[in-house]
Amino acid sequence: MYVLVMAGGAGTRLWPLSRKARPKQLLDLTGKGTMIQATVNRVLPLTAVEKIYIAANRDYAPLIQHQLPDLPPENIIQEPSGKNTAPCIGLGALHMAQQDEVMAVLPADHFIADEEGFRQALLAAEQVAREGYLVTLGIQPTQPETGYGYIHRAEPLGRYNNHTVYRAARFLEKPDLPTAQRFVDTGEYYWNGGIFIWQVSTLLEAYRRYMPEFARQLDALGQAIQAGQPIDGIWSQIQAQSIDIGVMEKADRVAVVPVDIGWNDVGSWAALYDVHASGNEDQNVVLGTEHIGVDTRGALVHGNGRLVATIGLDDVIIVDTDDALLVCARDRAQEVKQIVDWLKENQRRELL
Amino acid sequence: MYVLVMAGGAGTRLWPLSRKARPKQLLDLTGKGTMIQATVNRVLPLTAVEKIYIAANRDYAPLIQHQLPDLPPENIIQEPSGKNTAPCIGLGALHMAQQDEVMAVLPADHFIADEEGFRQALLAAEQVAREGYLVTLGIQPTQPETGYGYIHRAEPLGRYNNHTVYRAARFLEKPDLPTAQRFVDTGEYYWNGGIFIWQVSTLLEAYRRYMPEFARQLDALGQAIQAGQPIDGIWSQIQAQSIDIGVMEKADRVAVVPVDIGWNDVGSWAALYDVHASGNEDQNVVLGTEHIGVDTRGALVHGNGRLVATIGLDDVIIVDTDDALLVCARDRAQEVKQIVDWLKENQRRELL
Repeated sequence: MYVLVMAGGAGTRLWPLSRKARPKQLLDLTGKGTMIQATVNRVLPLTAVEKIYIAANRDYAPLIQHQLPDLPPENIIQEPSGKNTAPCIGLGALHMAQQDEVMAVLPADHFIADEEGFRQALLAAEQVAREGYLVTLGIQPTQPETGYGYIHRAEPLGRYNNHTVYRAARFLEKPDLPTAQRFVDTGEYYWNGGIFIWQVSTLLEAYRRYMPEFARQLDALGQAIQAGQPIDGIWSQIQAQSIDIGVMEKADRVAVVPVDIGWNDVGSWAALYDVHASGNEDQNVVLGTEHIGVDTRGALVHGNGRLVATIGLDDVIIVDTDDALLVCARDRAQEVKQIVDWLKENQRRELL
Repeated sequence: MYVLVMAGGAGTRLWPLSRKARPKQLLDLTGKGTMIQATVNRVLPLTAVEKIYIAANRDYAPLIQHQLPDLPPENIIQEPSGKNTAPCIGLGALHMAQQDEVMAVLPADHFIADEEGFRQALLAAEQVAREGYLVTLGIQPTQPETGYGYIHRAEPLGRYNNHTVYRAARFLEKPDLPTAQRFVDTGEYYWNGGIFIWQVSTLLEAYRRYMPEFARQLDALGQAIQAGQPIDGIWSQIQAQSIDIGVMEKADRVAVVPVDIGWNDVGSWAALYDVHASGNEDQNVVLGTEHIGVDTRGALVHGNGRLVATIGLDDVIIVDTDDALLVCARDRAQEVKQIVDWLKENQRRELL
């Protein structure tokens, strides 16, 4: 199995730790390695490191190589600019020689608690993919989240590696809260975690059918790469498009493998708290520093070595970095974006 | 008028800014100078700098000299160890040649908003002191504070420099809350701010009468100083004692000058907030750094240059220093002591 890890995100929602030069996937949020390292380690039991590719903006290539020293340097696929997921995945597929082989596409910046469960689901998806399906993992929702896209399942296709797999009826964009609640209540909807599995040939055929202009550009990209020429000129003309809209919503042989694997996209400091406090909600989560708490509950403390002392606080997020400090109510973690926006408006590049 | 500024306190309640090597009176809490500088500047319109003395532990002498470059170096009176206020004031009085002159004793670490009102009250007290009274300023209480001692006034002694001055009936130690409430309700009680005014001769006579053992030790101290000998041996045998208990509670010619001068002992981070937020309670007080607040009210942010961003917080104290960070509910500021105690128990000297 080939693996394409997409490492393109900017991730401003983990400011002040995440910065332009140091996005979420390249951060060590837990003290146990960066998210991209965890993503690669998670699939190493399934495939050889030579079959793992990383697609990322070329600015990040040196840091990625540094964080993944065992990865062949040529497996880092450098995007000249961000064009969303469809071009990124297409560029990745060009590097995979065996077109009848299955490729898995994984975001570089998600957390998965049940790693073995994840691998078993990938093996199920691989079986389905070999039947010519475009396959996605459907994350069992735990609450009516409005920040994710959803996948509506249709009829079961059968059992694969002990997983019941369904035909995917629709890919839906982020819903409002009543809609999300209805989705969760029916039990027929899954979160779209951006994890895809298909044969390389199935993907390329889908591009030709549903994104014909991009398919032609992809041929040109392939020729340029074969000839050892730069791809910047062709790449600049490619239209940004997500694989969800460009392919998945239009295709008809689409399957979903439901999973319940402790998935979390770590899209905010509150999400990082949830990952670590799971099942222990009144405790404090302390990462990267020492914390002395007097009457402090439900705190996330993320530091860089300085002592953090707290008194009389509930449900607060404290993120301590060399040049900026964030103190935030835990249920307001999404508003970190407002701080980042303010910094952009005020041209505070040193803090972005 | 002589002035003796007592700069002996340790001030752990402003941790993490205040440390053993850098106590409250030597901190610049406001960006406008340290508390000891403010204390000296406050009385400079009343007297010559040559008549101002600072009493402090000898460890602090170099930093005090640095902060008060215009003060004659010999005016820094170095205590070998802390013995509370009565020995400190006695040692100070030994340096004041004219025994019929009035001396004012001032703590080095209090804030006074109405500086001219303070000086006028000192001038009133000076007049009373010349009649042989031991005089103290009585701070008009603004709430039933249980953290201060109180002074109960008796009958009026008369008007001095436009102040009605009372005989002081009793000095009372820190009361419980119902007692404090009763004190405030009667209108006859004042906070004891530790500010005293008397003729040097009146003080020395009081020592002889109410602290005879210390008076003899003080004579020995004076002889050692005259002879240019070290005072450490004598000093080590002196019993620690406060001037309140040693003299003021026992003496009968004691007067109180009521004042309402925006006094604050800055005994906690919450007190520092009160000093700066006065009359503007829902605003944030930001000292020493830059603050971006989203939906943040009633915060004290004390930094050292790093950006502090806050989201969705009410009434919180954030103190950012090089090696430690405090985040504290504003009504829990007294509990900073618990953090300091923990550091002591765990021998974390680098943070004390």
